[in-house]
Amino acid sequence: MKRVDINCDMGESFGAYRIGMDEEVLPYITSANIACGFHAGDPLVMKRTVAMAAARGVSVGAHPGFPDLMGFGRRIMECDVEEIRDYVTYQVGALRAFCDALKVKMQHVKPHGSLYNMAVGNEGITRAIIEAIASIDDDLIYVALAGGNAVMTGKIAEESGISAAFEAFPDRAYTRQGTLASRKQPGSVIKDPQEAADRALMMARDGKVTAEDGSIIEIEVHTLCVHGDNPAAVDLVRLIKKTLESSAVEVIPMGSFIQG
Amino acid sequence: MKRVDINCDMGESFGAYRIGMDEEVLPYITSANIACGFHAGDPLVMKRTVAMAAARGVSVGAHPGFPDLMGFGRRIMECDVEEIRDYVTYQVGALRAFCDALKVKMQHVKPHGSLYNMAVGNEGITRAIIEAIASIDDDLIYVALAGGNAVMTGKIAEESGISAAFEAFPDRAYTRQGTLASRKQPGSVIKDPQEAADRALMMARDGKVTAEDGSIIEIEVHTLCVHGDNPAAVDLVRLIKKTLESSAVEVIPMGSFIQG
Amino acid sequence: MKRVDINCDMGESFGAYRIGMDEEVLPYITSANIACGFHAGDPLVMKRTVAMAAARGVSVGAHPGFPDLMGFGRRIMECDVEEIRDYVTYQVGALRAFCDALKVKMQHVKPHGSLYNMAVGNEGITRAIIEAIASIDDDLIYVALAGGNAVMTGKIAEESGISAAFEAFPDRAYTRQGTLASRKQPGSVIKDPQEAADRALMMARDGKVTAEDGSIIEIEVHTLCVHGDNPAAVDLVRLIKKTLESSAVEVIPMGSFIQG
Amino acid sequence: MKRVDINCDMGESFGAYRIGMDEEVLPYITSANIACGFHAGDPLVMKRTVAMAAARGVSVGAHPGFPDLMGFGRRIMECDVEEIRDYVTYQVGALRAFCDALKVKMQHVKPHGSLYNMAVGNEGITRAIIEAIASIDDDLIYVALAGGNAVMTGKIAEESGISAAFEAFPDRAYTRQGTLASRKQPGSVIKDPQEAADRALMMARDGKVTAEDGSIIEIEVHTLCVHGDNPAAVDLVRLIKKTLESSAVEVIPMGSFIQG
Repeated sequence: MKRVDINCDMGESFGAYRIGMDEEVLPYITSANIACGFHAGDPLVMKRTVAMAAARGVSVGAHPGFPDLMGFGRRIMECDVEEIRDYVTYQVGALRAFCDALKVKMQHVKPHGSLYNMAVGNEGITRAIIEAIASIDDDLIYVALAGGNAVMTGKIAEESGISAAFEAFPDRAYTRQGTLASRKQPGSVIKDPQEAADRALMMARDGKVTAEDGSIIEIEVHTLCVHGDNPAAVDLVRLIKKTLESSAVEVIPMGSFIQG
Repeated sequence: MKRVDINCDMGESFGAYRIGMDEEVLPYITSANIACGFHAGDPLVMKRTVAMAAARGVSVGAHPGFPDLMGFGRRIMECDVEEIRDYVTYQVGALRAFCDALKVKMQHVKPHGSLYNMAVGNEGITRAIIEAIASIDDDLIYVALAGGNAVMTGKIAEESGISAAFEAFPDRAYTRQGTLASRKQPGSVIKDPQEAADRALMMARDGKVTAEDGSIIEIEVHTLCVHGDNPAAVDLVRLIKKTLESSAVEVIPMGSFIQG
Repeated sequence: MKRVDINCDMGESFGAYRIGMDEEVLPYITSANIACGFHAGDPLVMKRTVAMAAARGVSVGAHPGFPDLMGFGRRIMECDVEEIRDYVTYQVGALRAFCDALKVKMQHVKPHGSLYNMAVGNEGITRAIIEAIASIDDDLIYVALAGGNAVMTGKIAEESGISAAFEAFPDRAYTRQGTLASRKQPGSVIKDPQEAADRALMMARDGKVTAEDGSIIEIEVHTLCVHGDNPAAVDLVRLIKKTLESSAVEVIPMGSFIQG
Repeated sequence: MKRVDINCDMGESFGAYRIGMDEEVLPYITSANIACGFHAGDPLVMKRTVAMAAARGVSVGAHPGFPDLMGFGRRIMECDVEEIRDYVTYQVGALRAFCDALKVKMQHVKPHGSLYNMAVGNEGITRAIIEAIASIDDDLIYVALAGGNAVMTGKIAEESGISAAFEAFPDRAYTRQGTLASRKQPGSVIKDPQEAADRALMMARDGKVTAEDGSIIEIEVHTLCVHGDNPAAVDLVRLIKKTLESSAVEVIPMGSFIQG
C-alpha cells in the first residue's frame, strides 16, 4: 500500500496578529511546520501550536526562516553559511524546548520561504541547514524539494547521518526538468481544486507529475505541501486527503515511514 | 573544605556590536551565563561563547531576558506569567541547541536584568521561570538571589523537581534584611577591590555579609556574581578568585556540588 | 451648533499581517491615528494609510507607542522620560515624512496603549510626549484622556505652545471621578450599540457622561474614540455618527475647531 | 580655490552598545551620516549625535539602511523598490524630527551598506531612494558613489529636482573603469596613511585617482568618505584634513558649495 505525508505551515501568528486557519486545516494534515520566531511566530504561539498539533495526532516540525519579520522571511537575505547554520540551530532549539515541555517528539525540520528556496540547488546552504539539524538530533528529518535537486540533498543528508524527505506541490506547475515553474509565469499555480487533488494522487501513488509541456516526469515524493491560509485552501486540503484515501493511499506522518 | 562557584554574564555581543571582555574574564570564573538573543546575544555569538567557555572548562548556563534589545533587558516589562514562562522556554531551548551541537551539558539558568529583579520576592514570576526550566530538563539549576527570598524560591524549585543555587554580589551593599541596597543609594556599589574580595571570602567561607548598618547577616551562598565588562572588573574577578583560593575556598562550578 | 471629532486607530497591519477594517471604518470617522512602526505598522502600511485617509477627507495623526511589537504596545515598559520623548519624536517624524510625501498636513498625535495609559496622571510622561510634539511642529494637537487629568495635561500643553484635544470613550464605563472604569471590572465595556451611541451624543452635545453609580459627570470632549477592528465595531461607529448628526452635532476633524 | 567635503558615518551605537569614535572624529569632518534605527542607531543616539555634530559645526545627514540590525545593514536584502522607497522615507523622516527639535537643517542623505552598494548602477533602486528624498525636502542632497555610475545618478536626481553629491574613498583601490575594487581582492584597501592622504588630495584637488593598473582616471568628487571606528582611522582622517588644507583645498560641508 502506498503512503504519503501531508505537511502545512502553521504557527505563523505573532503577538496580536493572526495568520492561518491552523485549527481548521489540522484534521487533514499529518505534519505541521511550525514557525520559530524569526520570520513569524512567537513563543506563546509556538507552544500553543505544538500543543494543538499534538492533540490532533499531527506530527510536529520546525520551520526556521530568515530574521525578517517585516518581510515574512520571503525576501532573499545574503547570509553566509555560518549565519544560516546558527540561525537554524537557534530556531530548531527554541521549538524543541516547547516539544520537550509538552512531551512531544519533534519529527522534522523544513526551512521557510527564501531560506527554503535558496537551499534548492545550493550545496553550501543545504549543507549548513543539514549540519545544524544533525548537530541537534540525528532523528530529525530534513524536508526539501523533490525533483532535480533531491539527489544532492539526499547525499548531504546521508553524509551527515540524517534522513531527508522530499516534498511536492500539488497546486504548482512543474517544468520538464522537474523543478517548480516560476510563480511569475501564467498557469504556475493550479487553481482548479480537483486538478490539484488529481495531481496529488499522481504524485503520491505513481511518483509522477505532468509537466507544463504535457510530458510525464518521475518524482520521488514523501510529503505533499499544502496551505491553510484561507477557506478555499482548507477545502483543497480536505479534497486532497479524501482523494488520496479513496484511492488507497495511506496519509500518515512522514516519520512513520522514513527512517529517522 | 568550603567551595563556591563564580558566575559572570557573557555572550552579550550582537551582530557588529561588542560588549564584554569575555575572553579575559573566563580564566577566573566557573559558570558563564550566556545571553540568548532577546536582550542581547545572537546565534553566532551564542555558539562562539558556548565553545569558548567549554574550552576553558567553564560551565555553561542560559541567561534569558525580556525581548528588549534596545533596553538591554534592563527595563521593567509587565509581561504576564504565561509570557514569561514561554519566553524563558524559548531562550533556554535556543541556547541548549548550541550546547547539544557542541556536546556541552548545560548546567544552569539565570534570568537577566529586569526579569531577574522582578522574580525576587514575586512568587508568580519565580514559578513561571522555574516551570519553564523544569519542563525542559530537570537537571538544570536555577540561579536566584540569595538572602531573604531564597526560602520561597527554594520551595518552588523543590516542588518543581529542580535545584536552586543562590548567588551573592561581593561588590554590592546589603540591607539588614539581607537584600541588595538600592543602586540609587550612595555606597551601594563597593568600589574598593580588596573590600569586595574580602566580602566575597566572607560570603563563601562563612556564609555571612556585613550589612550597611554594620550588622552581620547570615546568607547561604552557592555562587558569586561578578562582571567582565571592563578591565577593572576583570581585575576584581581575578582578585576575588585569588583571595578565595588562598583562603582554602575551592572555586568550582556549581554543578559539581549542587544536586542537579 | 455643537461639533465633535471621531478618532480611530489604524494602520496597525505589519508586513504580511493584517489588523483592522481601516477601509470600512474610514467613512464614519474624521481623524485617523496611524501606527508608526514601534508597536504596529510598517513604512508601507504607514504610507498607504496616510493616502487612504487623505483620500476620504479624514485627518491624519501619529499614533506612537512603545518599541514592543510582540506585545502590540500594550505592556507597561518602564522607560525614562528621555526615552519616551525621543521615541515619540522618532515616530512622529517618521509618519510626518509620509504626510510630506503625500502633501498631507499632519493634524495630531495620540499615544498608543500603555504609553497612553501611563501618561494619564503622570506629569513627567505627559511633559515628555508634549515636548516631543512641540519640538517638531507646534501646530500639532496632542490628544489625551478627557476628565480628571485634562487640567494638568492642558496646562503642560499650553506651556509648551501646543493645543490639546480631549477624548472620551462612548463604549466605556466611567467612575464618579470621571476616569475610565477598569477593564477588569464587569460592565466596564458598554456592549449595547444604542447605549454607546446615546452616551456619545451626551458626551459630544452636553459635555456629560453617566458614571457607574448613576451620577452625571461633566466632561469636556473634543473627540470620541472608536474602534474598527471587527464588523460590530464598524457598525457601532456608523451608528454613533448617525446618532450625532441626526441630533445636530457636526462631526468634523478636531483640527477645524481646535486652535493648532 | 578648490573645496571638498569630508563625510563619516556616525550615530551607530544602539542601546547599551557602543560603536564608533564619533566625538574624536568630529573635529576633522564636515558632514555626518547619522544612522536612523534600521541597521544601527536608536532614537536617543540619533538625537545625541545630531546635537553633537551641530555643536561642532558639522553638517548633518541621514544614513538609512536595511531593516537588519543583526547584519548591520551590510547584507543584501532583496527588497522591491516600493519597500526601499518607503524605508528611506521613514528613516529620513525620523532623523529629520530630531533635526527639527534641535533647530538643525538636514543637509544630505547617504544610504548605508548594502543599500548603498545595491543602488550603484541600479536605476530602479537609485530612483526609489531619490524619490523618497525629493518627496520630503528637495533641498536635501543625495550622496552617491563617484565614478562610472555618477552620470545615471545625476540624471535621476536632476529629474527629481534634487542635487547629488559624489563621493570617493581615499583608502580604497579603484579599477580602471572608476569603480571600487572588490574588498576581497588583495590591496583593495590602502593601508598606508600617507598614501591614502595623498590620494584624497589628488581626488579633491585634481579630480583624479590612480587606478590599480597605474592609469590615471578622472573622477568628479564632492566629498571624501572616511571612517571613525578605531584610533588609526581617526588619525587618518586628521592626516587627510591636514594634507588637504596645507595644499590649499578648503574642507567645508557639501551644502555650502552644492546647490541644495
